[in-house]
Amino acid sequence: MKIYNFAAGPAMLPAEVMKKAQEEFCAYQDSGSGLMELSHRGKYFKPVIDRAEANVRELLGLTDEYSVLFIQGGASMQFCMIPMNLLNGGTADVVETGVWSKKAAKEAKLFGTVNIAASSADTKYDHIPAVSDWKLTPGAAYLHITSNNTIAGTQYQTLPTAPAGVPLIADMSSDIMSRVFDATKFDMIYAGAQKNLGPSGVTLVVMKKALAERTAANVPTMLRYSTYIEDGSMFNTPPTYSIYMLALVTDWVKAQGGIAGVEEVNNAKAAKLYGFLDDSSFFKSTVAVADRSRMNVVFRTPSEELDAKFIAEAKANGLTELKGHRLVGGCRASIYNAMPMEGVEALIKFMKEFEVANR
Amino acid sequence: MKIYNFAAGPAMLPAEVMKKAQEEFCAYQDSGSGLMELSHRGKYFKPVIDRAEANVRELLGLTDEYSVLFIQGGASMQFCMIPMNLLNGGTADVVETGVWSKKAAKEAKLFGTVNIAASSADTKYDHIPAVSDWKLTPGAAYLHITSNNTIAGTQYQTLPTAPAGVPLIADMSSDIMSRVFDATKFDMIYAGAQKNLGPSGVTLVVMKKALAERTAANVPTMLRYSTYIEDGSMFNTPPTYSIYMLALVTDWVKAQGGIAGVEEVNNAKAAKLYGFLDDSSFFKSTVAVADRSRMNVVFRTPSEELDAKFIAEAKANGLTELKGHRLVGGCRASIYNAMPMEGVEALIKFMKEFEVANR
Repeated sequence: MKIYNFAAGPAMLPAEVMKKAQEEFCAYQDSGSGLMELSHRGKYFKPVIDRAEANVRELLGLTDEYSVLFIQGGASMQFCMIPMNLLNGGTADVVETGVWSKKAAKEAKLFGTVNIAASSADTKYDHIPAVSDWKLTPGAAYLHITSNNTIAGTQYQTLPTAPAGVPLIADMSSDIMSRVFDATKFDMIYAGAQKNLGPSGVTLVVMKKALAERTAANVPTMLRYSTYIEDGSMFNTPPTYSIYMLALVTDWVKAQGGIAGVEEVNNAKAAKLYGFLDDSSFFKSTVAVADRSRMNVVFRTPSEELDAKFIAEAKANGLTELKGHRLVGGCRASIYNAMPMEGVEALIKFMKEFEVANR
Repeated sequence: MKIYNFAAGPAMLPAEVMKKAQEEFCAYQDSGSGLMELSHRGKYFKPVIDRAEANVRELLGLTDEYSVLFIQGGASMQFCMIPMNLLNGGTADVVETGVWSKKAAKEAKLFGTVNIAASSADTKYDHIPAVSDWKLTPGAAYLHITSNNTIAGTQYQTLPTAPAGVPLIADMSSDIMSRVFDATKFDMIYAGAQKNLGPSGVTLVVMKKALAERTAANVPTMLRYSTYIEDGSMFNTPPTYSIYMLALVTDWVKAQGGIAGVEEVNNAKAAKLYGFLDDSSFFKSTVAVADRSRMNVVFRTPSEELDAKFIAEAKANGLTELKGHRLVGGCRASIYNAMPMEGVEALIKFMKEFEVANR
């Protein structure tokens, strides 16, 4: 049985990438060793991390103003590294659109003042607050947004800008490289790799080099962005295998026609799945239509019992990991870049059958 | 040609482990996905991290007083996490036996006072200072040692104890699980995985739970040991694949007869290689005989030119990564747990040939 894995992350990776990594797992090029067994300072790994960086630069269209960093600890570590490096007792404007932005705000409070510029917490994060309603702080140290909300299933359809002089920072963990956007409007973008970029264990951080100059002298070496900028993310041993996988995944994105090519498929997948949900009188989307995520499609059957039955039967039919996050319940299909259209079609086919049988 | 990889880390992993990981790379058990594509909260990964922890507990003989944690960032991140959590303005006693303990001391200075209890810096870290000469601080917040020095090639033959009431902390990155020792004499042990435990990207931290209660309230969530203790290292997405490899490697250690079984082979490998060095009038060990590392064997030929020639010709003969660390030069053969006796024998055979040809 063909299995399609709809996990929210760690999530499926492109089949071609997994196959290539498996083939060279024990013998990378002519080294006689697996890539994970080789020194990060040796001749085999350097071209890998260089290629990962070059791919990111090319795909996101970055100028030389930016550094591309590979840091451990996930987006959660960035929640504290950002204010530790950049807040310095100032005010962070945070747009609260889900659990993750709330966590970013919580850590920032340890290093300065946090202004929740807008929040959709009252309606369980079912929409993105209109930019026109944001209450921004003049001279804020930065403005932080979360571009896609894995748990709630919402996504900025148009990415916002920040007032002049205020650095714009985005957690793009769950939609990085899924759609074309102007990265140079951002001062910093970060993303845990385990959705669209590779396995867990590495976080991509793209930032303007000048931003890292703000860091106070008493910030520890491994928590300073400048350490990663100065040493090409090699101050200490980086997570070499995760970076290698990220290089392979970004190679794959390039082979799909870059982010524009991937986006076309993503749009078609999302349109098909939301179209089915809108036509169905059994399944329904619970997210504001204007803010629906093209990565995480959150939906429900008519009851919690049927949600559970659907998830179990889907799994028996090779459609796995469709359970919604424990904080919201229901069902969720994560359809990141690596999910082929066939996976979405198989899901819809099964949903139709389930609807007929349980209506 | 059979290749033996003598890299200091990331380093070779047991061949059986690499083979098994390759076999199930794309399809873990009946999941239809690779392990790295599966949710850390799903049914496949939980038994993996549980097994990794159980293996560590069994192999190190830990009591329930201890937590076993998997943290990102390498030993270098521990250099700051330790004082951030445990120093609180007190004094850290650090025994400086190499570059890594020096770095641990540097980060600790950001959070309190550092007393270098002893140092072998004056003689380029060629020995371990005698315990009888250590100048310890009464009531120190902790005493920190580095059990094996990857770069200098020295190792504590007898692990020290700390004065009553002073927590003993050891960086065992490069010799963890290589020899039997009493882990319960330590309050905390940590080790980047990329030498004896698996690939880079995960750091094993073993600590007495009570020690984590010292942490001040203003330490960020991801930098608090209590976060990892309370959530079983799953507060956020852990580096799942690195932990999986660590589980496989510790399975392998158990299959060798545990640490005692591995140590027997390690002792035989080191005895054979140092024996050859001592008998040779061409190659020589530069480390104090009493403090020689059984993991990293540092040696020299009669000249820098011959060092370079030896390293290049060894490589052409399938004996790779024999270059010494850039800080000390010369040659270094890292012979961690995964290096079989055959690798050491092949190295000695080539050294003999090289000696005859270049004497």
